[in-house]
Amino acid sequence: MKKIEVIQNILEANETIASRNRQLLNDHKVFCINIMSAPGAGKTSLILQTMTMLKDKLSIGVIEGDVASTVDAEKVQSKAKAVVQINTRNMPESCSLMAAMIESALKSMPLDNIDLLLIENVGNLICPSEFTLGEHKRVVISSLPEGDDKPIKYPLIFIDADAVIINKMDLLPHVDFDMTAFRRSIEGLNPKVEIFQLSCKTGEGIESWWSWVLEQIKTNIPKQ
Amino acid sequence: MKKIEVIQNILEANETIASRNRQLLNDHKVFCINIMSAPGAGKTSLILQTMTMLKDKLSIGVIEGDVASTVDAEKVQSKAKAVVQINTRNMPESCSLMAAMIESALKSMPLDNIDLLLIENVGNLICPSEFTLGEHKRVVISSLPEGDDKPIKYPLIFIDADAVIINKMDLLPHVDFDMTAFRRSIEGLNPKVEIFQLSCKTGEGIESWWSWVLEQIKTNIPKQ
Repeated sequence: MKKIEVIQNILEANETIASRNRQLLNDHKVFCINIMSAPGAGKTSLILQTMTMLKDKLSIGVIEGDVASTVDAEKVQSKAKAVVQINTRNMPESCSLMAAMIESALKSMPLDNIDLLLIENVGNLICPSEFTLGEHKRVVISSLPEGDDKPIKYPLIFIDADAVIINKMDLLPHVDFDMTAFRRSIEGLNPKVEIFQLSCKTGEGIESWWSWVLEQIKTNIPKQ
Repeated sequence: MKKIEVIQNILEANETIASRNRQLLNDHKVFCINIMSAPGAGKTSLILQTMTMLKDKLSIGVIEGDVASTVDAEKVQSKAKAVVQINTRNMPESCSLMAAMIESALKSMPLDNIDLLLIENVGNLICPSEFTLGEHKRVVISSLPEGDDKPIKYPLIFIDADAVIINKMDLLPHVDFDMTAFRRSIEGLNPKVEIFQLSCKTGEGIESWWSWVLEQIKTNIPKQ
């Protein structure tokens, strides 16, 4: 049972650091969203669309989590106020971002000049559900080609989500996807979750997403 | 550094059990393939297609790995000689199958009546790369909608693969995917890997895959 004990210790230590991160973000009036999904569901595309849509309203920072490479950081660099890439490849936990990695990244973020911090977690539907990072909201993206059974197979990440984005709606005519079954599975796990259907490629449905983000900031981070 | 030590011990213990599994499979002349991919890339569809194509040639057993649910086991049940579902949700390692889980599942498999054992790993491009199970060959499925940058972002699983399947070729006209860049990335990581382009949905390209499976069995498991 040694491993279970070690995991328990790690989860508790992570929670402590996550609370510290959240306090730091609150002190600087930075609203933070943790974006999680399977590989290739559209996390980077959602971040790019959100930055394009909100560029006149908010100053946005991005933390990019990947096992290896800096391709995502390079993609978002020109539109973000600041970007930090975290590579988890040689860390004890490579399958998810953890609060200690975010604590370290926040030191490179100009927090006084940022309104919204978007964290792109490592592409994985399992490990990221275990680690809070200090975020205010947790968002899961599920894309149509992955199939409608993902909430049944990976329930934990959907149970803890504040919002679920159903991405790649432009592929609906070309894939087998039962939207009613998918939404019913999510609502069964998490009745209060917000669900958005959109396509980061065409921009269809994106407005309801960024309106929700603005509303969350207004509610959670009161202006001075 | 306590966690790193514990991980090291777990990896060594896993390797020992995996060797025992491989010996047991060899003793019974069962050829075993470990199928890995991100969620929704097509592991179950590949298993269903393979069973359909090879039903007159081989007796096939399946081990299904999922965090939760038995939906995949139910899908393959009618075509397989035997199916065992493993749910990793309450296990110390939920993000991958491990050799000990396979050792336990093999006890329920009629090994003397099986030629080919297909193991569907948990949907994840990170954790399964760390754990061998006792398989003879490791196969990674990557599907077009996930994008062409997956080998760059999740290199380890591609480095250790014997074959990479590029699935959902039927979606090529509808997604942005640079096949040349994708193949170049994989070949850069793993020059000897076999690459198959196919669609489990339409059946296009599937013959080259199952011919390879038959060839591997012939080479690795000599008939008595």
